[in-house]
Formats: sequence, C-alpha cells, structure tokens
Amino acid sequence: MLRQLLPRCGRAFRAPTARQLLPLRAVQAARCYSIKPEAASTSKPVGIDPSRLTITKTTTPKTPSDPATLVFGREFTDHMLTIEWTRQDGWLPPQIAPYQNLSLDPATCVFHYAFECFEGLKAYKDKSGNVRLFRPDKNMQRFNKSAARIALPTFEPTALIDLMSKFTKLEERFIPNQRGYSLYLRPTMIGTQKTIGVGAPGSALLYIIASPVGPYYPTGFKAVSLEATNYAVRAWPGGVGDKKLGANYAPCIVPQLEAGSRGFQQNLWLFGEEEYVTEVGTMNMFVAIKNKETGQKELITAPLDGTILAGITRDSILSLAREKLAPEGWAVVERKYTMKELDEASQEGRLMEAFGSGTAAIVSPVRKISWKGKLVDCGLNELEESGEIALRMKGWMEARQYGDEEHAWSYVC
Amino acid sequence: MLRQLLPRCGRAFRAPTARQLLPLRAVQAARCYSIKPEAASTSKPVGIDPSRLTITKTTTPKTPSDPATLVFGREFTDHMLTIEWTRQDGWLPPQIAPYQNLSLDPATCVFHYAFECFEGLKAYKDKSGNVRLFRPDKNMQRFNKSAARIALPTFEPTALIDLMSKFTKLEERFIPNQRGYSLYLRPTMIGTQKTIGVGAPGSALLYIIASPVGPYYPTGFKAVSLEATNYAVRAWPGGVGDKKLGANYAPCIVPQLEAGSRGFQQNLWLFGEEEYVTEVGTMNMFVAIKNKETGQKELITAPLDGTILAGITRDSILSLAREKLAPEGWAVVERKYTMKELDEASQEGRLMEAFGSGTAAIVSPVRKISWKGKLVDCGLNELEESGEIALRMKGWMEARQYGDEEHAWSYVC
Repeated sequence: MLRQLLPRCGRAFRAPTARQLLPLRAVQAARCYSIKPEAASTSKPVGIDPSRLTITKTTTPKTPSDPATLVFGREFTDHMLTIEWTRQDGWLPPQIAPYQNLSLDPATCVFHYAFECFEGLKAYKDKSGNVRLFRPDKNMQRFNKSAARIALPTFEPTALIDLMSKFTKLEERFIPNQRGYSLYLRPTMIGTQKTIGVGAPGSALLYIIASPVGPYYPTGFKAVSLEATNYAVRAWPGGVGDKKLGANYAPCIVPQLEAGSRGFQQNLWLFGEEEYVTEVGTMNMFVAIKNKETGQKELITAPLDGTILAGITRDSILSLAREKLAPEGWAVVERKYTMKELDEASQEGRLMEAFGSGTAAIVSPVRKISWKGKLVDCGLNELEESGEIALRMKGWMEARQYGDEEHAWSYVC
Repeated sequence: MLRQLLPRCGRAFRAPTARQLLPLRAVQAARCYSIKPEAASTSKPVGIDPSRLTITKTTTPKTPSDPATLVFGREFTDHMLTIEWTRQDGWLPPQIAPYQNLSLDPATCVFHYAFECFEGLKAYKDKSGNVRLFRPDKNMQRFNKSAARIALPTFEPTALIDLMSKFTKLEERFIPNQRGYSLYLRPTMIGTQKTIGVGAPGSALLYIIASPVGPYYPTGFKAVSLEATNYAVRAWPGGVGDKKLGANYAPCIVPQLEAGSRGFQQNLWLFGEEEYVTEVGTMNMFVAIKNKETGQKELITAPLDGTILAGITRDSILSLAREKLAPEGWAVVERKYTMKELDEASQEGRLMEAFGSGTAAIVSPVRKISWKGKLVDCGLNELEESGEIALRMKGWMEARQYGDEEHAWSYVC
C-alpha cells in the first residue's frame, strides 16, 4: 500500500489543547459513573445537510456475487457514503462516491489513539421489492453516544437516516432477494487530525460502507458452546463497554483465540468476584430459567449498567418478549445473574435455554458453557440446535425485518 | 482526502475464524488475570530482516523548522520506516521511503476494532554530534507485549532497534543541536486486514515516523494541577491498561476536557472504592512523603499490577532513586496508595512533592489535586514550580539521555 506516493491531506489543524496551562480555580466536581456528552461538544452547529449530497457513480460496477458464496464483511458494494467534519466548519456536504481507499497521514489520530466508533445494521428486501432498514433510529442514537464519549462530533439522526436510505437504495441490486439475506451497513466514524498530541480531534470522517450478507446459519441453527472467561475482563463500571467503540474489540481477540483453541466458539464474559454473566462474544446474553422458588418461567438478561452494550436486537427481544411471552405467563427480567446461578439451575433442570443476541445472527443458541473445569448444560438435548424461545424470537424478528408484519420498527427506504 | 480515486490494496485474506464451529471438548481453563502472549502468536517465523532494507530518499527534502516554533507531534521528518507483515509470509523487507499517506480500504480492521499499538521514545544529539536513543530495548519489549495482547505480530527487538537506528541517522539533520531538544520517534503497528469480521488480523503494518520536539517546559518547570477522577475509570484488573494500545487513549479525552473546563491540566486517575492513585493523564505518578510513624522519607509510585502503564521513565526514575536517593536515606517504594493517604499527608505537612513521569516531560511537577471539593496541596510554595526530587531527577535523566554521562541506557546509533 505504500509503494506509490500519495498526496498528503491539505488541511492544517490546531495543536491539541492537552498541554495548555489553564488558570487554577476551586471546583466541586461531579462524582458518578457517567460522562456528560456535552463535555465533548466541540462541534459548531453546522449539521449534516442531506440536501447538499453529491453522487458520483462508479464507471466500473461490480457484479454481485452468487449469494451462496457470501462471507460476512468481505465483499462490499460499488459505492460509499462519506461526510467530513472539521471543528472550524462543522459537517461538510455529504458525498456518495465509488468505494475507494482512504488516504491518511501516518500521524492521523485514528491510528494512534483509537478515535473510532461504528454501528452495524441491515437492509432487507421485502416481498414487494421495497428496501427496509430495521430500527435505524436506535443505531443513530447509539452512534451519537459512542462518538460523544470519545470527543468525536455528533449529528442529527434523521439527516443520516435520510442519507443512509438514499445510499441503500442506490446499492439495492446488491441485496439478495431471498429470506435470510440482507445488506449489512457499517456506519463508521474516525478522527482524522494528523498530529500525535493527545487531545480532541479537530477533524473527523463519517463513512458508510455496505456488504451483502447471507444467513448466519445457512442450514438452520447450530448451537455454540462458550468458555466462561474471568482471566480477562471486557468492561468495567466507569469504562466504555456500553459504547460501540473500536477500543472494545481488539482486546477481546486473544481470549477468543484461547477459547477457540480449547474448542469453544465464543467467550462468555464474566464480571467480578460474583462472576456475573455480562455478554457473550460480541452479543448480548439471554437465559430462560424456571424460578427456583415459584417455578415461574423467566427470560433474563443483564441490565444496562454501563458494562453491557445496549444491543438493538437485545432491546427488540425484550420488547417482543413483553408483548408475546408475558401473556403466556413468562416474566421478562433485566437483572444481574451469576454463573453459579446458571450452574445451579442447570443441575436442577431449571435452565431451559440460553442464547446470544446480535445483528449478525439475531439469536445464537448456546449448548454448553465451560466453567471451573466443568460443562454447564444449557438445556438442549443432543439432537436439538435451538431452544423454543430462540426459534420463535428469530421468526418474530424476521417478520418485522422483512416487512411480512408491517411495524414501526421497519423503515422503508 | 476522498476526492481522488486510489487503488485498492491487492492482497486477499482469509475470512476470520470467529464463526468457525469448532468441535467441543472438555477443558480445564486457566483462571488468573493474565493473557498468554503465545495465544496470539499466529505469525510464521519469518522475522524482520534489517539486511533487506531498501531506502528511497525524498526528492523534495523539507527545511527543518526553527526549533523555537516546534509543537509536539505536528511536524515530521522527510522519511518513514515501514515493514509489512502477512500471516502467510511473515515480515516483508523493511523500507525507508518518503513520508507519505497510508492508503487503506475503508473496511480495514484498524478503523473498526482498534487493532493498533504504539511506542514513544526520543533520539538526542550529544556534544560530539552522536545520535543517541534512550533505552530502546525497553520500548521494543513493551511494543511486543502490546502487539501480542491484540493479536498483532511480534518481532525480534534487536532487528527493529537496528532499523530504527539507521532511520534516525538518516533524519539526523532534524534533531536540533540544543539541550532540551530531541527527535520524538513513534513506532506504530496497525492491523490492515480489510474485512469487518471480528478476528485476528491476517496482515499488519509496522511503521516509524519522527517528529522534532522542543523542551516540554521551554522557560523552566511549570507545575500542573490535577483533578482526581473517579467518575470515569482508565483501566481495571484483567483489562489492557498496562499496554500501550490506542484503545487506552480515546476514552480519556472527554474526562481531560472536563478537567480542563474546571481549570485542571490533567486527570489523576483513581481506582476502586479505596480511591487508589494510579496514573496522571498519560504519565505515571510519583509522590514524596514523610512516613507518618517513622518520619522516613519515601518516594512512592503505584505497582505494576496490570492497571498501570509500565513507563520507561517510571522505571528509570525508580532505578535512579535506588542508586542516588537511597544512599541519602530515602526509601523507594512501589506500593498502592490512596487519595485519602495523600490528603492526610498534605494536611500534616508530610507530602513533600508529587510529579508525573513520562517521555514527553521526563517529570511534570504537581501543585494541587482537586478531590472531593477541596484542593490537596502537594508541597510546593507559591513561588516554586518544582520540588527538589523532580528537579534532580530531570538532571540525572538528561545527563544519560544526552550522553553527558556515559551509561548503558544510552544507545549510540
């Protein structure tokens, strides 16, 4: 990639303020585990303006691959959406241009200090040929929270949904017209200031790329087994584990490789001496348990306490459970639960099923969890690859994603 | 930066293994807060080979700026050192080429999952005109640990020191020939795989850029004041706070802006309910205290428990203190200490001084710390900008950095 000389970015930025010596004054500081997003609000009120969008179409359109050969996140569509931001000028006019490399100075802050956050959502084709996004407002809301947490600029969600919608329509031919297939959209924001002083970036780039994807389980569910992980810790109160930052991902790969080397597909991230169950791999975690005292059926997931990513699939599953399972007598519960509790429920035959939830798989059933040298059985019999709740959830979710059921969650482009 | 079409990187990589379904087998997992670096060792044994270095000199050499105008990390030298790595071929031949932009696919994993780590060290010009590096072996050791923690490739330290030495000599004319000035070297490693599946990168780029820098305190020490920070947490046991990863930096900027808005130059990162003192901004923290019971003078810094960056300046200060202060009756102590303990020592007149330590400033004296609505005085009188220990440490360090005192820490290029 370095073999040809590439032009340097032209803008000059202010030096970071980290070393400025400010006058000392007495202070009563806030003392809670939270960051006020306003603190990062260095952006001028020049918002994203969809009316200023320019489109430059590719002259060398790709041929979409045979859907059966798709591998997640490896092939991309013809174009990308980009919007630059500078502290001086705010958001510059959006552009849709051919998919292309980014040319960045090697001192750019994204390479050194991980000024980067992203989102993941899917576009689906419905029976009438409409293109639909699933709850894009939730993604935009989270994207803004992630950006603000690392001093990147925020934006008006409806403006980006509008642009994303136009971009997705333009790439429509890459969305396979089959159930289980979709176009994965990856909105990304990076700091582009080209100085290595540690401070708030004076410039940023927001871009969206799109990758056609097939079903996570092409031949039906395949239950995974997890390694309960307490030798490495994914997130901490007061940290950034509830934001979709690049910073949360690279540190999880070595534990993933370790689990893999022992035959487990994912980590189950535990927290604290109590060994609270937090997340599984890059998904949220749900368990269905019969209450020890009352026999009440409970669908449980960890609460959003700052160490859990606020998954949009998680939120949708909770909502669907309250709508459809509660009338059947289920309790739907957001609370902390421990590995010991799961183990006990398993031994007593009360652990009905467990599954991860995320955009990629919707639900990912869990067969066993390795913990303290034993395997905790999660309620599937040998011939089953999914429990009943996971299976029904997938159906309910897809009905809304593909527009079979008209619902406010589905956004028609 | 997106306004011209740039060629895409040509290599194709394997899809990540995150979703492969591996056979399940029973396991007895390790249970301690540590990651075995071997777990990430996906690299073939094709090491960095300095004998294969190619040098392409710039045809448009820059004129070094007036040293008085230098701002940290804003100007760079004529060239950069780059070494590409792939899982298939190991480390490719090193190149020194003109300083230039990196051209990367927008799906490259460094932009999404923070596959990035770095180092910082300085090259000095001695009285005889030799170019010297300060303890580069320590930086290379730490660089390897950082890389291994996020599944990036490792390398033979001596090979990179050899290349860094050649590169620094080539850029010699950018090192100002004055005390306090130096050439800041920034070795950086990024994951370059261009798929957005979450897994170990199949390719990486190691590069070194260099920025001429002036003294941190051009007109003598200037004491800083800190805001003790417990509403956000920099690092935690089982996390990556002891590695020099990009992931540790972006999340610290908003708290830094918050502290700045209240008149404090840096955060003092506390940990836990006990409010242990960990680090200051991007530096390690030292305090000089008279023991409450014995009156013994103690130079104290937090131990390397996994939440503290293993600063090379920290290590050098501890070593110098044991060599030069211990014979004067000082105890040199690595132990946990709390904000409450500092406050008590301050109130009783036993807090002699406090300072941060790091490559940029060597030592950075601290005047006051804001904590629980009050200001903890760190022992400087109003007219002083540094305590005695910080001042002497700076002198002792510079004597070895600039080669006034011939010492094993100084590496002549």
